[in-house]
Amino acid sequence: MYPQLFVVLTLFVSSAIAGDYCVADLNLPDGPAGYSCKKPSKVTVDDFVYHGLAAAGNTSNLIKAAVTPAFSAQFPGVNGLGLSIARLDIAAGGVIPMHTHPGGSEILVVIQGQICAGFIDSANDIYFKTLNKGDVMVFPQGLLHFQINAGKSPALAFVSFSSPSPGLQITDYAFFANGLPTDLIATTTFLPKDVIKKLKGVLGGKN
Amino acid sequence: MYPQLFVVLTLFVSSAIAGDYCVADLNLPDGPAGYSCKKPSKVTVDDFVYHGLAAAGNTSNLIKAAVTPAFSAQFPGVNGLGLSIARLDIAAGGVIPMHTHPGGSEILVVIQGQICAGFIDSANDIYFKTLNKGDVMVFPQGLLHFQINAGKSPALAFVSFSSPSPGLQITDYAFFANGLPTDLIATTTFLPKDVIKKLKGVLGGKN
Amino acid sequence: MYPQLFVVLTLFVSSAIAGDYCVADLNLPDGPAGYSCKKPSKVTVDDFVYHGLAAAGNTSNLIKAAVTPAFSAQFPGVNGLGLSIARLDIAAGGVIPMHTHPGGSEILVVIQGQICAGFIDSANDIYFKTLNKGDVMVFPQGLLHFQINAGKSPALAFVSFSSPSPGLQITDYAFFANGLPTDLIATTTFLPKDVIKKLKGVLGGKN
Amino acid sequence: MYPQLFVVLTLFVSSAIAGDYCVADLNLPDGPAGYSCKKPSKVTVDDFVYHGLAAAGNTSNLIKAAVTPAFSAQFPGVNGLGLSIARLDIAAGGVIPMHTHPGGSEILVVIQGQICAGFIDSANDIYFKTLNKGDVMVFPQGLLHFQINAGKSPALAFVSFSSPSPGLQITDYAFFANGLPTDLIATTTFLPKDVIKKLKGVLGGKN
Amino acid sequence: MYPQLFVVLTLFVSSAIAGDYCVADLNLPDGPAGYSCKKPSKVTVDDFVYHGLAAAGNTSNLIKAAVTPAFSAQFPGVNGLGLSIARLDIAAGGVIPMHTHPGGSEILVVIQGQICAGFIDSANDIYFKTLNKGDVMVFPQGLLHFQINAGKSPALAFVSFSSPSPGLQITDYAFFANGLPTDLIATTTFLPKDVIKKLKGVLGGKN
Amino acid sequence: MYPQLFVVLTLFVSSAIAGDYCVADLNLPDGPAGYSCKKPSKVTVDDFVYHGLAAAGNTSNLIKAAVTPAFSAQFPGVNGLGLSIARLDIAAGGVIPMHTHPGGSEILVVIQGQICAGFIDSANDIYFKTLNKGDVMVFPQGLLHFQINAGKSPALAFVSFSSPSPGLQITDYAFFANGLPTDLIATTTFLPKDVIKKLKGVLGGKN
Repeated sequence: MYPQLFVVLTLFVSSAIAGDYCVADLNLPDGPAGYSCKKPSKVTVDDFVYHGLAAAGNTSNLIKAAVTPAFSAQFPGVNGLGLSIARLDIAAGGVIPMHTHPGGSEILVVIQGQICAGFIDSANDIYFKTLNKGDVMVFPQGLLHFQINAGKSPALAFVSFSSPSPGLQITDYAFFANGLPTDLIATTTFLPKDVIKKLKGVLGGKN
Repeated sequence: MYPQLFVVLTLFVSSAIAGDYCVADLNLPDGPAGYSCKKPSKVTVDDFVYHGLAAAGNTSNLIKAAVTPAFSAQFPGVNGLGLSIARLDIAAGGVIPMHTHPGGSEILVVIQGQICAGFIDSANDIYFKTLNKGDVMVFPQGLLHFQINAGKSPALAFVSFSSPSPGLQITDYAFFANGLPTDLIATTTFLPKDVIKKLKGVLGGKN
Repeated sequence: MYPQLFVVLTLFVSSAIAGDYCVADLNLPDGPAGYSCKKPSKVTVDDFVYHGLAAAGNTSNLIKAAVTPAFSAQFPGVNGLGLSIARLDIAAGGVIPMHTHPGGSEILVVIQGQICAGFIDSANDIYFKTLNKGDVMVFPQGLLHFQINAGKSPALAFVSFSSPSPGLQITDYAFFANGLPTDLIATTTFLPKDVIKKLKGVLGGKN
Repeated sequence: MYPQLFVVLTLFVSSAIAGDYCVADLNLPDGPAGYSCKKPSKVTVDDFVYHGLAAAGNTSNLIKAAVTPAFSAQFPGVNGLGLSIARLDIAAGGVIPMHTHPGGSEILVVIQGQICAGFIDSANDIYFKTLNKGDVMVFPQGLLHFQINAGKSPALAFVSFSSPSPGLQITDYAFFANGLPTDLIATTTFLPKDVIKKLKGVLGGKN
Repeated sequence: MYPQLFVVLTLFVSSAIAGDYCVADLNLPDGPAGYSCKKPSKVTVDDFVYHGLAAAGNTSNLIKAAVTPAFSAQFPGVNGLGLSIARLDIAAGGVIPMHTHPGGSEILVVIQGQICAGFIDSANDIYFKTLNKGDVMVFPQGLLHFQINAGKSPALAFVSFSSPSPGLQITDYAFFANGLPTDLIATTTFLPKDVIKKLKGVLGGKN
Repeated sequence: MYPQLFVVLTLFVSSAIAGDYCVADLNLPDGPAGYSCKKPSKVTVDDFVYHGLAAAGNTSNLIKAAVTPAFSAQFPGVNGLGLSIARLDIAAGGVIPMHTHPGGSEILVVIQGQICAGFIDSANDIYFKTLNKGDVMVFPQGLLHFQINAGKSPALAFVSFSSPSPGLQITDYAFFANGLPTDLIATTTFLPKDVIKKLKGVLGGKN
């Protein structure tokens, strides 16, 4: 009597898989909606768990800060699920410089320390505030925003995104850390050429 | 004079195909938005027609009911089109137990017999009603719902979904028909262990 | 001890409502995503049930057929849920003329009789087949399609859509049942003016 | 010379606002895509910051746990931005019982303590693991999942969602904490009536 | 000190790529959301630039008009980006016949000459107007529309779409330029058979 | 005999409207998906036509350029249709400075003159090219991009977007044309304070 039930239920197994999740197989081609899916038979719980955010990022650098992403390229389990997460470590005096995420909104929760965070909208209005432990702030998609350690001890935050692959574009890095010609930068940003050249020097951009 | 028209129109043929439909090729990788597409040159009308719902499902089983899906895994023509369909056969005394479709809303139309159908929402409000032939009921995405034969003769209904692969999760089956440890079920459902073990026995779950 | 649980759960009640469903309030403004929502406190099971498809449509008309929709304007419960349904009655000799649904794909299931159904894609390929009781056919979004009674007795089908408000544009009605100037129709369709005028006469279009 | 620049830029201000964000005005009607927007002129940084997750939830209750949401109903700034967040406090011995979020996927990061978390998919496969501080786990949309304190001290986690209003349906609460008739529950869940009545007693459901 | 910054930034490079764009690789399988992506390492600026609309289309044809598309099949750079463009050349006396785009809305800007453009909605209301140089008109998704040269000199327009692959279905071509049986056309359009046969002769349809 | 047909068709009229279009009523509240819809009975062809791009923008300004948008705030007919358009006038020596559109991708077609256009992606790769009359370039959503007149005569281009309200954020304006504190700008951009102050002076920012 029961086998028939199992037949019915087994039928659903194959049909339902596609809609539940799509763990990224980074070796297969990707498409506009994300990476191709790993075969269901090879998926294990370890595809849905990520340990890479457990350790603090190394903040011994220029910005005294580190961003450790768990986007679909690092954490294939989020592929197709419409969200991802990252860890922010900001040492005293550290800063996550002005940047945007072209593909998603961001929500930040402070775990430790104090962070001054803010964004600028299309109407050119400014929104910034100093956040304490447990405070949450949301940054709408694609807008320029920043985070600064506002205290005297290291700050820790987790930031979630409305996309498994939100992208990241740090303005300084986009302007000064590649081969964008100095003349072109000057023309499109009104910055003095000597300043551009100096920042290229610091950030590794070619002249 | 006409060949030029055909040139123009032929141009559109290749460009337009992608947007019209994407019959699933189950042998190619799938992605977050569904299966890869069968080559247009191999698509025939039979890809858009499905005969699998014409025969009644076998209701000689525990639940005296059968669900026969035409999701993208069974009916590749619906892949990417945002909808699918299934057939419900519920014998007298039969029931489609409490379940959810994680990936889509459902609309049910009664073709024969009487069905008592209902759902529970996130606010914990209950909505149920006895439906007669020709009546339609909608079940919002992801909410627990059920269908019971409310008459003395077999009932037949067709249910459509807002996804080509809406998934199906029958609560009892999720709890008692796999290897979920009895202790863990007890802890997360407050059900007595003897009841859990008994239902595992009925539904094939491992202890 | 329990009141705290209820506090927690009550918190979710208000927060969760918005995401579960949005029964249309046709008296409030609508937006790009559909109608505004009826207040949750006024929603009852009757908002999710529709009786309007139980009776056969009147097929004593020019096309010997009737389409009875349960779109969001008739069945407010589907608003925002991504699907809707309609009933097709096609008497012997009847036809649902060439038409499109600009806003959604369609899936048809034959309940009674025989229906010859088909569509034409952007590549100008033709797909049509005679469907029997229980057969299912899918029509991709926005493409021209038709249904013809292929038997000698009345045919009945239910059609579901991937949108709560898929729209309907019957080609003949769009060309000949309004005030579109005869010259303009002739220029954009290559049809002879006398044919246009005759069809305007039949379908009620102004000259 | 500059006034013209400001004219140009001022033009954009009004046009761009709509696309940047839509802080919920809970007094205006909501729609399928979320709440109506607060007037831009009244929006301040406080609309984008939420303090409600800073304090631990009260875990002196049946489940020894508390879920504190920052969904659009509590934190209007996330409305329309495709994400939200909540705080989980789970005392030693505590549990977030089996539940689903009908409207979104979830990502969890452990801040303190140990949590055993898991989910069951549509194919009835089980995925669970004990997570330590800094570990991340993702739960695909609409699937049954749970979180249990796996240590001897209080556990704290933040969970983010791919929707500003993901909903929450706790299975036990849906079955036993409202007026769903005992017979109907028994029929649709196969649970013994005495067990149902006992759980109704605990959870406040009517008989 | 700086290498650490570069490590951090390099991490983002791989993670971010997927969300920025997805230049179509026409040799890989396509899916419901579009074509698979070209490997990022092979993408150059030429993937984002298209020269194919620079030259006027040949209007020495039946309709004295030409449509030159830059859809994802011609211009792979738009794949996944939600938009595309095409060039319309309409000689004096020329016309773009009644047609629909099943997969997207259209916006037209007149560059040269005068164009009478219009559409018919699902409510059967007619909207048409003569547009001059610099005028813009929008045509909602899936609705029948047309463009006619309303002046005495050649007209040029660019039309953009809300989809990288909006499709195109010219009504006349769908009815009369393939093998759709004359009887079936007559039944579903009410057009006289002699007219159908004549138009098939002109447009290349088989009898 | 015909009245019945009209009854059937009239039924569709009310049901179909919602899905066809949603002309913005700027006096009603807006929501996450756009503005509320103007009543269908008040919609005319003039809602779908926009004359505001016919005249050249005034380029007698700092950037020797003008952007004239036809977004939903200026051209309510595009509301909800997933696209919009704007006109770029760039005098000799003019430039559209580095900017992003947070809410949409952009496609540009050169109508007159020569334009050097480019963008920088999340991987920090640079893509730029000089475009001639008739050339098309696409800029993926949210990425920094610019346009420079590369010739000696005025340049004209039309740019379309994949959103009716894509937003616009000019980096210089976001940094230097509001009240963002100089210290905060310096900290988050590494720019020297004297340069920041000078640019604030030029662009109207407060110190």
